[in-house]
Amino acid sequence: MRVLSGIQPTGRFHWGNYFGAIRQYIALQNEDEAYYFIANLHALTTIRERDVLRRNTLEAAMDLLALGLDPQKATLFVQSDVPEVSELSWILMTITSRGRLERCHAFKEKKSKGLPADMGLFTYPVLMAADILAYDSNWVPVGEDQVQHIEVCRDLAKAFNHRYGEAFVVPEARLLPHAARVPGTDGEKMSKSYNNTIEVFEDVKAMRKKVMRIETDSRPMEEPKAPEGDHLFQLCSLFVDAEKRESLADLYRRGGFGYGQVKKMLADEAESFFAAAREKRAELEAHPERVTEILADGATRARRKARAVLDRVQEACGL
Amino acid sequence: MRVLSGIQPTGRFHWGNYFGAIRQYIALQNEDEAYYFIANLHALTTIRERDVLRRNTLEAAMDLLALGLDPQKATLFVQSDVPEVSELSWILMTITSRGRLERCHAFKEKKSKGLPADMGLFTYPVLMAADILAYDSNWVPVGEDQVQHIEVCRDLAKAFNHRYGEAFVVPEARLLPHAARVPGTDGEKMSKSYNNTIEVFEDVKAMRKKVMRIETDSRPMEEPKAPEGDHLFQLCSLFVDAEKRESLADLYRRGGFGYGQVKKMLADEAESFFAAAREKRAELEAHPERVTEILADGATRARRKARAVLDRVQEACGL
Repeated sequence: MRVLSGIQPTGRFHWGNYFGAIRQYIALQNEDEAYYFIANLHALTTIRERDVLRRNTLEAAMDLLALGLDPQKATLFVQSDVPEVSELSWILMTITSRGRLERCHAFKEKKSKGLPADMGLFTYPVLMAADILAYDSNWVPVGEDQVQHIEVCRDLAKAFNHRYGEAFVVPEARLLPHAARVPGTDGEKMSKSYNNTIEVFEDVKAMRKKVMRIETDSRPMEEPKAPEGDHLFQLCSLFVDAEKRESLADLYRRGGFGYGQVKKMLADEAESFFAAAREKRAELEAHPERVTEILADGATRARRKARAVLDRVQEACGL
Repeated sequence: MRVLSGIQPTGRFHWGNYFGAIRQYIALQNEDEAYYFIANLHALTTIRERDVLRRNTLEAAMDLLALGLDPQKATLFVQSDVPEVSELSWILMTITSRGRLERCHAFKEKKSKGLPADMGLFTYPVLMAADILAYDSNWVPVGEDQVQHIEVCRDLAKAFNHRYGEAFVVPEARLLPHAARVPGTDGEKMSKSYNNTIEVFEDVKAMRKKVMRIETDSRPMEEPKAPEGDHLFQLCSLFVDAEKRESLADLYRRGGFGYGQVKKMLADEAESFFAAAREKRAELEAHPERVTEILADGATRARRKARAVLDRVQEACGL
């Protein structure tokens, strides 16, 4: 089975990205034939500065590699290095109905927020379908918000197959398993738009400072507290094993501790949790040519697959 | 100066296509660096049968070559052989506003006729812009109905240049010169949708038969007639020189002739007008590998240019 994940190069990954998706994506390399791409063509719809897009693309690749993506096991590449995807995108466009795209939530939502309704945003699901279909992907791990786009992809694949004969593998969506809730420094969901993020590869000192400033309530030390709803507890839970988690929960229930003590523990655990990745990251940063090489090799492998699919599709429709 | 013409492979060319556009397109090879492409990606929006699209694409190429397109002078290629165009198309999509496409007449017209509003039709002007911009085209010969699409192309080129720095040559539209009125066999404008066409490479006997059946009025032979408004006269004018045209006009004004006599003259003139092309066409048909070779060579040249433009554009926007 072949699995595909696209990662937007919208900036440095934060804890929310990592525990919410990236970690699960990377784990897939052990079970399936995994393809990962940095979605720089999609990012064009939001990142309008050349240097930012270029830097983000390279950094996303370094982050993934540092976090354990193994180019021996998986194929990692940059979206724009596979022209076949853009070619497929037009072919799919000719069988896409306008109404189908107008009913997509992501588009309706952005439009209702008054964001400019440009065609990149509007036709995004068609390019996404091309991404998926280009590699005969069997399944695509997604969050709730992307399920509808996978439906569009499936519909397009079926419509094409129906009209021209079986040319596409019809993929399936799989909701990401174990997507833990990751609160930000203010207790709300961690998200760049709330400005409450802690980055995975943040400088250690800056990370510790952010952790020590996490907002907490003003209940007295002595008072017993319920761990479950507490965002500090939730954050700690991401980094520790079950045993440590249980003893921290006990501490909460007993009371008689200060939040500062928990914060220090969180900072220590986060530091050691990402220590190996941080080291790997520094090594890659010192040798960007290795990253470039990995991406070039990934693109070659991805193109080989995409070329075969495109040949089949062009043959089917008479191009 | 570089000039670009796209030709839709929607079937065999008829006299209306030839005298209305093709002849002028081909003439451009003598003045400018000319690029001609068979627009099979555009045709996908209307031709849904693989074999028809494939055959039409090859036949359009043979027709153009038979009619005088000289691959030594001009670059002839098939649209889908240049992946860079699809790549550019997505990049342009990200800077296209939806409203801009909604205001396009061609789309509004088809929509108002109740034709299915698929995305191929809707985003057609974006692919057309990519076609033009991919080769740094300086100008594009068009009919009245395409002027608006060239405006879209100019706007996109300017918007991109404004945002990312000068990357695109901004092209200009030129209305086709001397587009003669070409009536069909019923006197209406010659058009496939009126089912009144005579094909350029129609079998000679069939062509003569169609000419002899051209509808005429029932005024008596003796009556003098005004040549200008007469469709048989207009058709003859396409094929003969000024001197013959004048003597035919005199005959009309004098009266005392039968339409059958004019039809016979028209059939003779049309036959000899296209005789050389017909011979060339038969030769190409007997050697389709020559056509394939010419198209492959054209694609190589076109891609070289398109690659340079795409490099510039990707560099400008950070891909």
